[in-house]
Amino acid sequence: MRNSSRSEIDPFIVMDVMEAARAAEAAGRDIIHMEVGQPSTGAPAAARAALAEAMEAGPLGYTVALGLPVLRARIAALYKEWYGVEVSAERVIVTAGASGAFLLAFSGLFDAGERVGLGLPGYPSYRHILTALSLEPVGLSARAENRLQPVPEDVPEGLSGLILASPGNPSGTMLSREALSALAARAADIGAALVSDEIYHGLDFGQRAVSALEVTDDVIVVNSFSKYFSMTGWRVGWMVVPQDQVRRYERLAQNMFICPPHASQIAALAAMDAGEELEANRAVYAANRQLMLEGLPEAGLGKFAPPDGAFYIYADVSEYTDDARALAADILEKVGVAVTPGLDFDPERGHHWLRLSYAGTTADMAEGIARLKRYFKG
Amino acid sequence: MRNSSRSEIDPFIVMDVMEAARAAEAAGRDIIHMEVGQPSTGAPAAARAALAEAMEAGPLGYTVALGLPVLRARIAALYKEWYGVEVSAERVIVTAGASGAFLLAFSGLFDAGERVGLGLPGYPSYRHILTALSLEPVGLSARAENRLQPVPEDVPEGLSGLILASPGNPSGTMLSREALSALAARAADIGAALVSDEIYHGLDFGQRAVSALEVTDDVIVVNSFSKYFSMTGWRVGWMVVPQDQVRRYERLAQNMFICPPHASQIAALAAMDAGEELEANRAVYAANRQLMLEGLPEAGLGKFAPPDGAFYIYADVSEYTDDARALAADILEKVGVAVTPGLDFDPERGHHWLRLSYAGTTADMAEGIARLKRYFKG
Repeated sequence: MRNSSRSEIDPFIVMDVMEAARAAEAAGRDIIHMEVGQPSTGAPAAARAALAEAMEAGPLGYTVALGLPVLRARIAALYKEWYGVEVSAERVIVTAGASGAFLLAFSGLFDAGERVGLGLPGYPSYRHILTALSLEPVGLSARAENRLQPVPEDVPEGLSGLILASPGNPSGTMLSREALSALAARAADIGAALVSDEIYHGLDFGQRAVSALEVTDDVIVVNSFSKYFSMTGWRVGWMVVPQDQVRRYERLAQNMFICPPHASQIAALAAMDAGEELEANRAVYAANRQLMLEGLPEAGLGKFAPPDGAFYIYADVSEYTDDARALAADILEKVGVAVTPGLDFDPERGHHWLRLSYAGTTADMAEGIARLKRYFKG
Repeated sequence: MRNSSRSEIDPFIVMDVMEAARAAEAAGRDIIHMEVGQPSTGAPAAARAALAEAMEAGPLGYTVALGLPVLRARIAALYKEWYGVEVSAERVIVTAGASGAFLLAFSGLFDAGERVGLGLPGYPSYRHILTALSLEPVGLSARAENRLQPVPEDVPEGLSGLILASPGNPSGTMLSREALSALAARAADIGAALVSDEIYHGLDFGQRAVSALEVTDDVIVVNSFSKYFSMTGWRVGWMVVPQDQVRRYERLAQNMFICPPHASQIAALAAMDAGEELEANRAVYAANRQLMLEGLPEAGLGKFAPPDGAFYIYADVSEYTDDARALAADILEKVGVAVTPGLDFDPERGHHWLRLSYAGTTADMAEGIARLKRYFKG
C-alpha cells in the first residue's frame, strides 16, 4: 500500500521505556513510574456520578459540533474565576482533547508548507502533528538561563505561527505576564499566529499561571480536562478563538470530528465544580514537587530549573552521559525507576536530559528518589 | 487573525434545516424529523452498565494509542462472524469515531496536493476533511442506472486514492462483491489506495453488506460504533489496515489523538455482545424502510433506488423543483417535516434531490409519510 511522506514520524522513545517497564513488572519486579504523563487519579466522583445519571436519562447522541452550550458557558466563566478575563461562551470550542484542538487550530491557521515555531524542549506531538498536516516545525532552542522557555530573540522571521506552552512540558517552567506579552508582540510583528497551550493551568505551585488571553485576544488558547481536572482518558479539552474565527472552526469541527465525546462533556461539566477533590489532587503534586526539589539534588540530579507548574522536572544529566536513552535504560535495569530520556522533547540536545514525572503517589515519589540516590550515589 | 485557505469549507446546508426545525419546535409546532443522521436509540443497556461499573473500578486514564487490546480482538472476531474473513487483532485500530479514522487514513496515505476520488452523491465530510488536509477531492458522479454507486469506468487516472461507501450515504445502496472487486481492481490499476467506508454495516435489509476485506487486503476499511451499535455521541470507531501499515498508524494515532476515549471503548466492547437489543433496533429500521418503500411513491416521491442498508432514501425531486433547498424549507413550513436537500451530498446535482432519513420511530415515519402525501398530493 502507498504511504504519504508526511506520515513518516519518529516513534516515541518513551514507548521503549514504558515497554521495558511493563516487561519488568510482568517479570515480577517492582517499578516506580516517573515516566508517565498523566495523573494517577481518575475523574472526580461528581463527574462519574453525573455521567452515570445522564446515561440512564436518555441517549447520548451527537452534540452540536462546538460542544454542549452549558459546558461552553461554564468554561467561559472559568476565565473570569481564574484570570479575571471576560471571555464570551461563543468563543469557547469544546474539543476531543487538546489533541483535537491542535488538529483544528493547525489546519485552520496554516496551509501546507508553512513554518511554525515551537520551543525546544517541548511536547513532541506539536512537531509530529504539524508534520502530519504538511507543515514544517521549526524548533527554537530555548536556553537554560531563560528556564527553557523561548524569548523574543529566539523567534526568527518567516514563521506563520508560534506555539507557546506555559507551564511547559517537560520543564514545568512558566512564562510571566511580561514574557508572554513580549512573545505575543514578537509574533504579531512577524505576522505569526499565536497558539498558547495552557493544559497544565490549575497545576501551579506559587505564582498563578498567566493565560495568553490576559495579554491579547489575537491568540488561540488550548486547554484540556486531562491534567488539573484529572480526566486524561476521556479525551475532552477546549480552545478559545477570536470572535471572528468561531464559524470557521465550527465548520472544521463539524467535518473533522462531528462533535467531542458526549459522555466526556457531561463528566467534564461536573468535574468543573469538584473543586475540593481537585485541590486535594493538587496538594499531592505540591508535596511531591517539594520532595523532588529537595531529594533530586541529594540524589545527584540537581541541574534543573525549579518547575512552576505541571508535574515534571527536566534534569540536565550531561555530567553522567551523552546518551540519556542508555542512562534511562540502565536506571530502570539497576534500580527499577522508569524515567524518560529527553530526546522525545528535544531532538538536538535531549541526549543530555531526563524528564522525571512526579504525578504518582507521594510514597512512590519518595521511594523513587531513594532509588535514584542509590543509583547515582551508590 | 490569519487563516489557511484549506479551512475555507462550505457550511452544511442541513444545518439551516435543523435550525429551522428547532425554531419551529421552540415555537410550539410538531415536527417530524427525517433530516437526522443518527439512531434515536441510545447505547445498549449492557454498554452503559459496563461503563458504570468500570468508572467506579479505577481511573480511566489513557489507553494505548491503538485501543484496548481486548476491544481490538473482539472487533477482529466480528470479521469472522459477519463475513467469514480472518483479520488479525493487530490490524484493528480503534479510533475516535469514523471521523478519527478518516483523519488518520488520509494523512497516512496522501501528501498535500494529491487527488482523491469519491462517488457523488456521498458523505460531505469526505470532501471537507480532504480539503482541510490540503488534498483535492475529485467527485465522481455516479449514475442512477448504477444505483448511485460508482463503477470502474467512472474512476479516472491520476487519483492517489479512491473512497467507497457501501451502504452509501445518502443513497443506502450497496456494492455487490463483484462491484467491489471491480472497483478494487481499478484502484490497483491506477495506483490509487482504496478506502472503504463500512459504517452502516449491520444495518442491511436483505443481502448482507460485503466488506472490502472479502475481496482484498490492500485496503483501509473504516467502521464505527455509531450506527448499528447505536453509539453516535460516544465517538468510537475503528479501521483495519494492512499488516505492514500498523506501526505507521500507531505513530500517527499517538500524536494526533493519544488514544480513543477510554470510556467509549469500554462501552463499545460491551455493546458488541448486545445482539438482542441491536437486532431489535434493526427490526425498527426494517419496518420503517418498508413503510417508506410503500408510502413515498404514494406521496409522489417514487424516484429513488430502493436502499439496501443504512436508514436513508435519496429521492429525485426534479419533477417538482430546481431548488431542493427551497423545497425542503417549504415542506418544513407547510407540513412540518424536516428533510435534507441534496446539495450537501452532491454539489452538482443535489439541487434536484432530497435525503429522507427513516432512523426515527415507526409512528413518526408513518406520520411523516402522511404529511408528505398531503404536501405533494394536496
